[in-house]
Order: sequence, then C-alpha cells, then structure tokens
Amino acid sequence: MFRSRLSSVLLSNVRAKLSNVSNLHVSIFKKFRAKDCEPKPVAVVLCGCGSLDGSEVTEAVSLAINLNLNGFKPEFFAPNTEICGVMDHLCKQPDSSGVARNALVEAARIARSEVRPLCECDCNSGIALILPGGFGCAKTLSDFATKGAECTVLPDLERVITEFALSKKPIGAICIAPVLVAKVLCGTKITLGKSSPPEKWPHCAAIAEVKKMGAKHEERSVTQVTHCKQHNVFSTPAWMYNGTFAEVHDGIGRLVKALKKKMK
Amino acid sequence: MFRSRLSSVLLSNVRAKLSNVSNLHVSIFKKFRAKDCEPKPVAVVLCGCGSLDGSEVTEAVSLAINLNLNGFKPEFFAPNTEICGVMDHLCKQPDSSGVARNALVEAARIARSEVRPLCECDCNSGIALILPGGFGCAKTLSDFATKGAECTVLPDLERVITEFALSKKPIGAICIAPVLVAKVLCGTKITLGKSSPPEKWPHCAAIAEVKKMGAKHEERSVTQVTHCKQHNVFSTPAWMYNGTFAEVHDGIGRLVKALKKKMK
Repeated sequence: MFRSRLSSVLLSNVRAKLSNVSNLHVSIFKKFRAKDCEPKPVAVVLCGCGSLDGSEVTEAVSLAINLNLNGFKPEFFAPNTEICGVMDHLCKQPDSSGVARNALVEAARIARSEVRPLCECDCNSGIALILPGGFGCAKTLSDFATKGAECTVLPDLERVITEFALSKKPIGAICIAPVLVAKVLCGTKITLGKSSPPEKWPHCAAIAEVKKMGAKHEERSVTQVTHCKQHNVFSTPAWMYNGTFAEVHDGIGRLVKALKKKMK
Repeated sequence: MFRSRLSSVLLSNVRAKLSNVSNLHVSIFKKFRAKDCEPKPVAVVLCGCGSLDGSEVTEAVSLAINLNLNGFKPEFFAPNTEICGVMDHLCKQPDSSGVARNALVEAARIARSEVRPLCECDCNSGIALILPGGFGCAKTLSDFATKGAECTVLPDLERVITEFALSKKPIGAICIAPVLVAKVLCGTKITLGKSSPPEKWPHCAAIAEVKKMGAKHEERSVTQVTHCKQHNVFSTPAWMYNGTFAEVHDGIGRLVKALKKKMK
C-alpha cells in the first residue's frame, strides 16, 4: 500500500517534471516562432499627401498593403519641412490660399499618425528603404522639377540613401522616386517606364534627364520591375503610366516581392 | 491555261470575300467583347483626405484597387463644402492655422483630380454606391460625432443613398460609414465590428448609437462582411479595428466581391 502510494507520488513528480520540460520547449518554440513571424520593418519615406505636391497616395498605400502581405511593416518617415508649391488637386493649379503646409504633418494623413521626422531615419530603421513617388519627390525631396539633371537632393534623404546603400540593404523606388536614387548613387540602373506613347507616359521627359545624370535607363511596363545589381536598387513605373489603380498596385506588389527575394 | 488563270482569280476573289466576312465577324465580336469587358462604374463618395477629418486614405485607395480588380471603375464624388474640424494628423489635435479646407478639393488628392461634386451624383452614376470611412463621415457628411443617434446626414448624401436604395442597386459602406446608411435606411443590418476588446476596437461606442437608431448590428471581424438583404447593404469594419493595412485591404476586397456576387 505504502509502496504503491510512494510510486504513485514519484510517478506524479516525474510527470510534472516532464510537463515542465515540455512546457519549456513549447515556450522556447513559441518565442522563436513569434520572432520569425514578427513583421520586419521597412523604412518608407513620405513627403506630404497628394500626387501634385506630396507623396502619391495610391502608391504609398499600395506599398503599405504589399509590405504587410509579404511579412514586413512600414516605418514611415517624412521631412519636417514646408511643402514646396502646395497644389489645389481639383483644378491642378497652385493653391490660392498661400498657406504653408508641412510635409511631415500632411504625410501623417497617409500614415495614420505613425510617422517620424526623416532626420531620425538611418540604416537601422529598416531592413530595406522604399520611396513612393508623387511630385513631392521632385519639388520638396529634391528640386528635380525645376533643375532636371542638375538637381540636388534634400541632405537628409541623400544621407539615408547613402547609408542604406553602404550597408548593402536593398532600396526600392516607385514612379518618379528612382530619380532621387539615381542622383545619389551614380550610374544606377532604373526604370521610369517607357518613352512613348506620350498620352500613356505623360512624364516621359524625365527619362532624358536621368540619362544626363549618368543613370542607366531600362524601358519597363507598369507591371514590371528593374533591378540594379550594382547598387541593389529596385524600381517600377507605377503612375508614370496613365493606367489603373490595380495596375499600379500590381507593379508595386512585384517590386516588394522582387526585393524580398533578394533579401533571402 | 486561261481557265486555270480564271479559276485562280475567282478563287482569290472568294478568299478575299471570305476574309472580309471573317474580319467583320472579328470586328463585331471585338466590339461586343470590349463592351462586356469595359469596367462598370461604381459611385464612391469621398469627403476630404485623412482619417481624422476626411475620407480614410487606405480605405479609399484599397476600394479603388479592389473595384478595378473586379471589373469596375470608381467614379468619385465629394461634397463641395468646408471640412468640419480640420485636424493636424501628426499630433491628432485641431489644426492650429484655422484655415478652412474644402472637402471636394482635398478629396481630389485621393482621386488624382478625377472627382465631381456630390450634387451631380444620382442613381445613374454607378451600378452600385460605396462609402469609405474616415471621420469626415461623422463630422462633414453627418454630425454623428457630436449628436450620435440623433445625427442628421448631409441632404445631398441622404438623397443619393435613398435613390440607390429605391433603384435596388447595392450599397457598400466601410468602417464608420455604415452609420450614415443606417440613419437614412431605417432598420438596416450593418456591422461596425466588435464591441470588445476596446484596445482592438477603439471606436466600439458607435455600436450602441446605431442600435438606438433602430439599426440591427452584427458583430464581425476585420475580414468579414455583413449583408442586409432587406436594403441590399454591405458593410465591413476596416479601420474600426486596430489592425494592419493588409487586413483592411482584405476586408474591403471581400466587400467588393460580395457586392459583385449579388449583382449577377
């Protein structure tokens, strides 16, 4: 009776210890699995909100969706600076109020308040850097709209692009944004889409300007991606093409997938 | 020799005629196919640009993408009126400049300039009507933010919702927008998501208010859709849930697909 009770207690102790070991394994496994599944940050540089004076809204949102779908999360940054040339997007004319808007504050409309100043961004802010398009790229993040090949890039953005390139992390650029990367990283191969027909590629004049910068230009459709092996830069035309929301979303999806593939 | 040449000419004429008939068939077929494939318009009502005072940007863009993907095209409308309570989206406080912004002009930032005044919208503007969310719904398209169940809906939007309902065309409403449909169409079954936990459903207090209006409320996750058979109204919670861009996109995709299925 006593021996039976003793063996029962011993058995119970052994079971409890085995259970503890098993729980420990489950806990370690869960921890590793959680770490594996946790979405990895990708730094996304915005600049206001709107195609004519800020970040192109479809491109920024489609990028955020596609990042999530591929196991990443966007970490938004924008320069804490005045937007150059605020536009009335209804009549496509300069805003008549003359009231300044801030690129960081307006970018928060896309980022749902989760956006930090660009000066806080460095190559540790993400495992990759991606720039959506929009005329903010050519007016606030640079002066490409007025100076073409002779443009200069906002010093903070120049630093961020250089840091990501030096740390061998991939860089993605959408629509007109590849111009900024081409200016900072000499000889980069990019796409801004195609040079004709002009009614489908209304901003194709930019291609001649990037060539003057020394960039290599590859003609690509709205759903294609160019990869520059030398600088690990990915680009896609998006709204450089007069297409549909779905076509732009498709091209950006392919850019994120191509970038992810090269990270493995 | 002559007969042989004659028969050769005759044969050539017959071939040419057959080719013409064939080309005619191809041309008619192409015409019909083009008509079949032409994307059908869906009226989308925006109101500014930004989650805290206008249309929620992700929801509006995701809707446009999903409409394209399902063979539709968005026809954007917005009220030509001042935005009530312009917000600084970075610090989530009222905009300190005190400068008015127009709901139609700001909506053009999402719609890439292709947006018309809401007063021009009627039940012939689309084969369906869809309203994205954002606090513009509760502050400019209605006064739900301050009056709750006792709110009134902007007369032009009330007219548009009523017209679509009377013509038996489906209505979709995303995020907080189902409140507007529930106010106009008494007894509508909608979803605004779930009532707990509050950290995942930060705007769940709205559920009690729509119930006071007489609406039937169905608890649904961010990727689920509620269908009200009585009024042919579809709703999905989107950013009522504290989720990801991809989850919101998924839910809106399901809403568009469900709406399309009921149109067949």
